[in-house]
Amino acid sequence: MKEALFTVHNLWMMIATILVFIMHLGFATLESGLTQSKNTVNILFKNVLIIAIGLLTYTFIGFNLMYPGEAFSGMFFGFNGLGVALPTGGDTAQYGAGHYTYWTDFIFQAMFAATCITIVSGAVAERIKLEAFLLFAVFFVAIIYPMVGMWKWGGGFLETLGTDKGLFTGLLATVEKGKNVGTPFYDFAGSSIVHSVGGWAALAGVLLLGARKGKYTDGKINTIPGHNMPLAAMGVFLLWFGWFGFNGGSVLSAEAGNVSRVFVTTSLAAAAGALGAFFTSFFILKTHDLTMSLNGILGGLVGITAGADVMSVSDAVLIGLIAGILVVLAVLFFDRKRLDDPVGAIAVHLVCGVWGTMAVAILGAKAGWGQFVSQLIGISAIGLFSFGSAYVVFYIVKKTVGIRVSETEELEGLDLHEHGMSAYPNFTMTTAASVASPEQHQVVTNATQTTNQTKDIALIKT
Amino acid sequence: MKEALFTVHNLWMMIATILVFIMHLGFATLESGLTQSKNTVNILFKNVLIIAIGLLTYTFIGFNLMYPGEAFSGMFFGFNGLGVALPTGGDTAQYGAGHYTYWTDFIFQAMFAATCITIVSGAVAERIKLEAFLLFAVFFVAIIYPMVGMWKWGGGFLETLGTDKGLFTGLLATVEKGKNVGTPFYDFAGSSIVHSVGGWAALAGVLLLGARKGKYTDGKINTIPGHNMPLAAMGVFLLWFGWFGFNGGSVLSAEAGNVSRVFVTTSLAAAAGALGAFFTSFFILKTHDLTMSLNGILGGLVGITAGADVMSVSDAVLIGLIAGILVVLAVLFFDRKRLDDPVGAIAVHLVCGVWGTMAVAILGAKAGWGQFVSQLIGISAIGLFSFGSAYVVFYIVKKTVGIRVSETEELEGLDLHEHGMSAYPNFTMTTAASVASPEQHQVVTNATQTTNQTKDIALIKT
Amino acid sequence: MKEALFTVHNLWMMIATILVFIMHLGFATLESGLTQSKNTVNILFKNVLIIAIGLLTYTFIGFNLMYPGEAFSGMFFGFNGLGVALPTGGDTAQYGAGHYTYWTDFIFQAMFAATCITIVSGAVAERIKLEAFLLFAVFFVAIIYPMVGMWKWGGGFLETLGTDKGLFTGLLATVEKGKNVGTPFYDFAGSSIVHSVGGWAALAGVLLLGARKGKYTDGKINTIPGHNMPLAAMGVFLLWFGWFGFNGGSVLSAEAGNVSRVFVTTSLAAAAGALGAFFTSFFILKTHDLTMSLNGILGGLVGITAGADVMSVSDAVLIGLIAGILVVLAVLFFDRKRLDDPVGAIAVHLVCGVWGTMAVAILGAKAGWGQFVSQLIGISAIGLFSFGSAYVVFYIVKKTVGIRVSETEELEGLDLHEHGMSAYPNFTMTTAASVASPEQHQVVTNATQTTNQTKDIALIKT
Repeated sequence: MKEALFTVHNLWMMIATILVFIMHLGFATLESGLTQSKNTVNILFKNVLIIAIGLLTYTFIGFNLMYPGEAFSGMFFGFNGLGVALPTGGDTAQYGAGHYTYWTDFIFQAMFAATCITIVSGAVAERIKLEAFLLFAVFFVAIIYPMVGMWKWGGGFLETLGTDKGLFTGLLATVEKGKNVGTPFYDFAGSSIVHSVGGWAALAGVLLLGARKGKYTDGKINTIPGHNMPLAAMGVFLLWFGWFGFNGGSVLSAEAGNVSRVFVTTSLAAAAGALGAFFTSFFILKTHDLTMSLNGILGGLVGITAGADVMSVSDAVLIGLIAGILVVLAVLFFDRKRLDDPVGAIAVHLVCGVWGTMAVAILGAKAGWGQFVSQLIGISAIGLFSFGSAYVVFYIVKKTVGIRVSETEELEGLDLHEHGMSAYPNFTMTTAASVASPEQHQVVTNATQTTNQTKDIALIKT
Repeated sequence: MKEALFTVHNLWMMIATILVFIMHLGFATLESGLTQSKNTVNILFKNVLIIAIGLLTYTFIGFNLMYPGEAFSGMFFGFNGLGVALPTGGDTAQYGAGHYTYWTDFIFQAMFAATCITIVSGAVAERIKLEAFLLFAVFFVAIIYPMVGMWKWGGGFLETLGTDKGLFTGLLATVEKGKNVGTPFYDFAGSSIVHSVGGWAALAGVLLLGARKGKYTDGKINTIPGHNMPLAAMGVFLLWFGWFGFNGGSVLSAEAGNVSRVFVTTSLAAAAGALGAFFTSFFILKTHDLTMSLNGILGGLVGITAGADVMSVSDAVLIGLIAGILVVLAVLFFDRKRLDDPVGAIAVHLVCGVWGTMAVAILGAKAGWGQFVSQLIGISAIGLFSFGSAYVVFYIVKKTVGIRVSETEELEGLDLHEHGMSAYPNFTMTTAASVASPEQHQVVTNATQTTNQTKDIALIKT
Repeated sequence: MKEALFTVHNLWMMIATILVFIMHLGFATLESGLTQSKNTVNILFKNVLIIAIGLLTYTFIGFNLMYPGEAFSGMFFGFNGLGVALPTGGDTAQYGAGHYTYWTDFIFQAMFAATCITIVSGAVAERIKLEAFLLFAVFFVAIIYPMVGMWKWGGGFLETLGTDKGLFTGLLATVEKGKNVGTPFYDFAGSSIVHSVGGWAALAGVLLLGARKGKYTDGKINTIPGHNMPLAAMGVFLLWFGWFGFNGGSVLSAEAGNVSRVFVTTSLAAAAGALGAFFTSFFILKTHDLTMSLNGILGGLVGITAGADVMSVSDAVLIGLIAGILVVLAVLFFDRKRLDDPVGAIAVHLVCGVWGTMAVAILGAKAGWGQFVSQLIGISAIGLFSFGSAYVVFYIVKKTVGIRVSETEELEGLDLHEHGMSAYPNFTMTTAASVASPEQHQVVTNATQTTNQTKDIALIKT
């Protein structure tokens, strides 16, 4: 009996791991689809290495930093030694309240960690040096992400808020059954701990990098359209697919009621996010903007992540709808602020991550003023630390190896200069047109005019 | 003990839900791959919104229309109130013969519902107005699909055929253990209830829309080739992948014998479908036609769906083989009848859906004359209602907001006119060539000839 | 209790089946991405038919050849009759140590068998006749693959090595608890039995086919770049995704400790493979080569497959790292030997398959000299038989229906000549450029120069 239940709980956690893994393909196709074809190999290369670096770095150091273990009683930092080892007691040693093995726990958390750095990848795309990004990725997934994670999931200060052992005992004390359990910061699957952390780091990167050439010229905001919409759409479907594991796996067991409820809230928030972005972009931009609807789905998913287990059907729809609206407004806002984020990662992961975290204090089973304060504390602490440390690391990288490719490299594409290859060598491209130097632009335009004088193609280019 | 078994049954139903979800990506890539690049954003946009609209509409009204609940004793219509609510008794309340939670039931059924409208999307592609399609989708998934589903899966008249409470008591009475159980219409996972319903609606849409410009000219049938074969192939593999959940989940538990048997019959029918279409298209068309083989797989999958749990290995192979042959013949037949279905959805979902439903009366454990009559009744009732109601809704939409885009829009592409963007802005396209107006055609042809005078490219165009 | 455990074990085996299935999509996109756009339909067509042929052939003959059943006591060959039938005793008959049903066993093994032939497909791409390949595929999956599989997994001579009933009793006798258990050849999930078998057959095909036109000219090795890097990257992510089922399912139950351990070793080897190839290609080729990193992942996966259940974390990382290095070296080596393998399949599946099989004797719980001899025996026997029989079959095909397309067909593309269609009819292609005949080359080059005189595009072409 116990064996069967343990096996099924563990099975779900393993399947959730696979689902989170495939999110990396989702990020890879989303990001390459929403950027220019001359940088496609570069994006794919980054995403391939991210999962490799993420898994190995987390194995070596991150896991033990994030989960310092039973003996740990610190608040901000703990460490359990280098590397991951087979626990004594054999392979089948029960672990995590008897719901999964040590190996399952590790690999699920490792896949989570690797997703966080992927968020940054999209925002800094098309102009960051490959070496700079890879260096940042190592630091980020080895130290920054696990430290924030530890604050909550490893038993750190956000988990003990208001308890006798924790901070703000007076302010956030909550007594249940005669025991002060505090009012811990609540973030079910990581709206803040994963998504906003990635979003803050993305913001730091974008600030230090500056916008892509040609994005903001003469006070105008120019659209640099993504080169492959099927890839982008595929990315969003795969991310939604993976999110069933991301949120569903965060139940940490296959317990039927909780996991199935999380499936419902997650799906409905995603659906509502699509509609929120659909209507908002139609009212503001007067068009049926595909990328906005795609980002609306992602916004809804990020938004529901913090409270997917405590929301009702209508709460989930509301959270998703607002997230979908916020995504569109945030994309436009960041553009107006000259913060060039090619894929909208900051709008999706940072803005909707914060929204989702706050929503826990407003809607659902955890709503309340105490929770509101807790959420504010958590969001602020995570924001300050993530943004600050990411900024410092990016800054050091900038001052040492350099962070941005040369202007020539950017114009001609990172694929050519960093990788010596093209993503589509058999296709005739018009890549250079959008951000070409004047004389190049001339040539391309002429050639293109010769080739396609039909009205549709000409119109699309404008 | 009971908890473990409940948890594993529920786990499988949740995983089946995820698998059915990813079919939406399969439909999106299949449909965009088989149509022209100038309409790709439009197809993707529809598919993104379909899943959003499908889930929310089904939440609000469809689910309660399809499953009127225990108290229900009608035959054609029942309704259980608006919205989906958490059942009293807590999250873990057992439901569905103790095999899954209320939430799991809802989300699995909701994903099913959303697939049905996707079927329509491909057939009406490249010329339907976005608003028209979205309006139709709302009605379809809110009312038409759930009503048909209720007839069988919600305990309606197709489920009670021949029983004392049902229709045709004399004709279809079948007594088991002294009780008249009737000879209910049999459709295991929806060859009729899902696929033919979608197919009938697609037929209605195609009839009211008319063919794409340039498809049938001067008595000739012109091929308008799909723009991206890897996308199309990806779609079929993903649909097959998802079908393990579609059919396997329809067991409504993880019961080992039934689910694994369904896996075998489903896979072999798909494989046989590919070969059936391969040989048929080779004999008739004298070529190795990729899209035919792809549609052969889908035909095999649709065909086995009605009886996947009652067929032997050889039955499954036979059903798939015939479905694969039928798909090719049906595609050619509809083309001769000037019914322009860009992706072959009517051949796949309607023709093979009907074939699969009839096959239940001919092959496998349910075969027999009583079943034959039952299947005929079911197919007819479903066909009349689905086609009729879809026709009426499409007709109303046509007379109010209009159903078809303007000729200019169609020639220049829906992406440009409905969405103001291109799916592939960095690529040089020859989109307009196939259906351009005379003067445009001239320009494109000239330009293209200048660009690619090699024999292969020129030949491909013809 | 027993029912729940049986159901969860069976559930995992079914899910593993689905995961192995989707590897076929991975192979399809990887192979089409790494080859030229003029042969894309052909590659997709082969991969669609492979899964169909693989499943049906394995049903009819392969399964009973690979698993001759209880009564069997041979060493090299056994056969259990044609076709697959429902076992008496009902659907739920327990099978395979009570871990899964007969149906599950069959369909899991059938998906495995079909992957093996896919390996060959990539290596012989862009020049093999479709009929020749399909004929080979039928023989290979019906007879060659199952016979090798039987040697180990069906209880043949590699499973009985050193026992009283087996070969080399003196040399490889190992006594446990008073019983001579021998030192059987060890290959957990098929580094040799699946991957090297495919790799050897690929080598035979490449030897008999010769290189693609234009690959080796005037003593130079010319790069013929793959036409679509997102497709290639997608392929690798999907293969990794599927490998969780390939290796994880090879535990043959959902036993928590073993499956989760396999997940960890598999993932870390893949990650280390990426880094191994990354560094090796950077040091040797002085570039960040995406295809090398992708093949490094695959090399790591193939390498860990033989011992995924007996390796520690550091063993897994080491195996993957070395596999990643080997892949790069092997690709360069085969190119120097004029063995033209467009996708690097021989380097990945043969070289890393052999490495992974030997690694079992060097690292992990099975390491030792006796095992070393066993592994050598297994590798040699499998190599001789696979290569020899594949060579003979390919040779017969060559002498009868012919194996290679005509020069014109190769230059103009298999899509045009074998399928009469283009994979990308709306795109302007420069397909012919790389391997065109002189006069064609001239035309294309002129046209292309007119169209794109920008520096980046010109550079990419060189």
